[in-house]
Amino acid sequence: MNSRLDRLRAEISALDGLLVTDMLNVRYISGFTGSYAVALITGGAAYLLTDSRYTQQASEESPDFTLELIEHDWTGAVKGLIQRFGLKRIGFEGHSLSHRDWTQLSGLELADAEDPIGRLRRVKDQSELVAIREAVRLADLGYRHIIGFIEPGMTEREVAVELDCFMRKAGAEKEAFDALVASGPRSALPHGKPTDRGISVGELLLLDFGAKWHGYHSDITRTVVLGKADKKQQEIYDMVLEAQAAGIAAIHPGVAGGEVDGAARKVIVDAGYGEYFGHGLGHGLGLDVHDGRILAKNSEIILEPNMVVTVEPGIYIPGWGGIRVEDDVLVTESGSEVLTHSPRVIGLGRSD
Amino acid sequence: MNSRLDRLRAEISALDGLLVTDMLNVRYISGFTGSYAVALITGGAAYLLTDSRYTQQASEESPDFTLELIEHDWTGAVKGLIQRFGLKRIGFEGHSLSHRDWTQLSGLELADAEDPIGRLRRVKDQSELVAIREAVRLADLGYRHIIGFIEPGMTEREVAVELDCFMRKAGAEKEAFDALVASGPRSALPHGKPTDRGISVGELLLLDFGAKWHGYHSDITRTVVLGKADKKQQEIYDMVLEAQAAGIAAIHPGVAGGEVDGAARKVIVDAGYGEYFGHGLGHGLGLDVHDGRILAKNSEIILEPNMVVTVEPGIYIPGWGGIRVEDDVLVTESGSEVLTHSPRVIGLGRSD
Repeated sequence: MNSRLDRLRAEISALDGLLVTDMLNVRYISGFTGSYAVALITGGAAYLLTDSRYTQQASEESPDFTLELIEHDWTGAVKGLIQRFGLKRIGFEGHSLSHRDWTQLSGLELADAEDPIGRLRRVKDQSELVAIREAVRLADLGYRHIIGFIEPGMTEREVAVELDCFMRKAGAEKEAFDALVASGPRSALPHGKPTDRGISVGELLLLDFGAKWHGYHSDITRTVVLGKADKKQQEIYDMVLEAQAAGIAAIHPGVAGGEVDGAARKVIVDAGYGEYFGHGLGHGLGLDVHDGRILAKNSEIILEPNMVVTVEPGIYIPGWGGIRVEDDVLVTESGSEVLTHSPRVIGLGRSD
Repeated sequence: MNSRLDRLRAEISALDGLLVTDMLNVRYISGFTGSYAVALITGGAAYLLTDSRYTQQASEESPDFTLELIEHDWTGAVKGLIQRFGLKRIGFEGHSLSHRDWTQLSGLELADAEDPIGRLRRVKDQSELVAIREAVRLADLGYRHIIGFIEPGMTEREVAVELDCFMRKAGAEKEAFDALVASGPRSALPHGKPTDRGISVGELLLLDFGAKWHGYHSDITRTVVLGKADKKQQEIYDMVLEAQAAGIAAIHPGVAGGEVDGAARKVIVDAGYGEYFGHGLGHGLGLDVHDGRILAKNSEIILEPNMVVTVEPGIYIPGWGGIRVEDDVLVTESGSEVLTHSPRVIGLGRSD
């Protein structure tokens, strides 16, 4: 924890203090896992402000921080603290601080610090990698379970509930996000929520899910067909896999995220499906499921060892369906390590 | 859906348009259930801006809205729209719009409209009450199941997972929030997350959970003892129930939320436990689990028929434990209706 504070202080030395309102950033820098707190970090001190519901928890989770009780509104409490210590130039997180709260802090000398903790969070330390590997292991277990569980006629919802509950009973804190289970033409919805639609043999079935463990997430997508894939399903699947492999091969320290997106996208464009791949190749993974748009189209973020990203090319053809394959990848000194190990096979070879 | 737009337009007639960035407000006014969109409502038109992931879903869910595609950042797309139609005075939601996004909208004539949709959302229409009643029914079912399931030696986590998964399999969209299951002295944590602590006979066990159904939430707390409650547990429990009954009896249209809090709080203060009741009596319930601090201490919000609130007095004594009882209550023309029907009995009468 202390080393995170040290790294942060090196980033914000031009400021008298940094006001942290993004709850994931509060957790990262202080260890506090509750839902309501703000932090104020100065060169020599660190304060955590929370209300009476959380004082006991905060004292246990954030030993490096001085606790301050929020009795009414947090903006008043922070203002009091800043004025008490005569702090001048205070950085804030412009993506997180609401306009209303910013207005209530008027009178302070505030500057948008542009998320310095978010930048630190891109590169994971060892304790974070342990948590991500465990979240990945639980998602892989979930996938192995669910492909043995699915039967024709089950609804998308039944599959989603089983997947989430299996991962929780296996030890996940919870699911990483609401699982997407989309069958048939619904698989063309990149964010298709599970419905009561029944699953049929021969149809595309897209499963996008993950596990959360000690605050960290995994995120995996597999597209399958109960039975045997037809020719078009298999061809597009193979092309998506090829694009994914090209993306993963492009991952090296020093490379810009946009180049990795470009390497995968070229395979899809060359195959004539460019118009059907509407989103970026992948995102960072950590305390947030979407922890920075690292592999977005044109991303200028330079990859560094111990970043973790998803690589998830997808083709969505309205009326026909969609195929996406997503794995979680660790950037290493020499290139990359694919963390997820679920099989990449479209045909489940059952019931046909 | 149209009547919601009509009611909103009556509220914002001093503006040329309202920019809606709070996703629950977007859902309320447009019907869109995805995770990324903004809405712009003018006197004669309504626009929903979203990206390519959600265009198909938005066209299905928001037939009263004209869709606009966000290709890059949403602020640019909104600015283009506002300038295209020559709109001048635009209201925004100061609690939701980030300071950064507000900065990126510079050049527009913006005013904090102070959440007009949030005010509309306090009073539920019939379709919302149907959803809340179903969410309540699922939570009551969950409680009945879990008190038959808990055995001494089970961990808090096992109980929480069983509760959530039972409600999902019974038809809940998901749990309303991460269930709190806190045993023994941990019950004194008003937000005690489930741990691997084993549950023992004779200890306090606090369960705070709910179900989500079609976007709407229930929220219920029961405190129980496996076996028979001891004298102090029973006395404090009875006093908390008395405080809750006094709060519920005070609920009538025209009464301020703070008065309801005061009626319950008086019972606790008179019994000498005032210092152990650190939070407000209850909150609104709807698309958000905490849908407005309606029954907060000193709340000046006037109760109206078809508001739904929680009534949840609690006593938390560090080292000893906590007792909270929470029910969901509909404000009616003549007073109130308690929606939740789970038994209010502390001793489970088993294993002793």
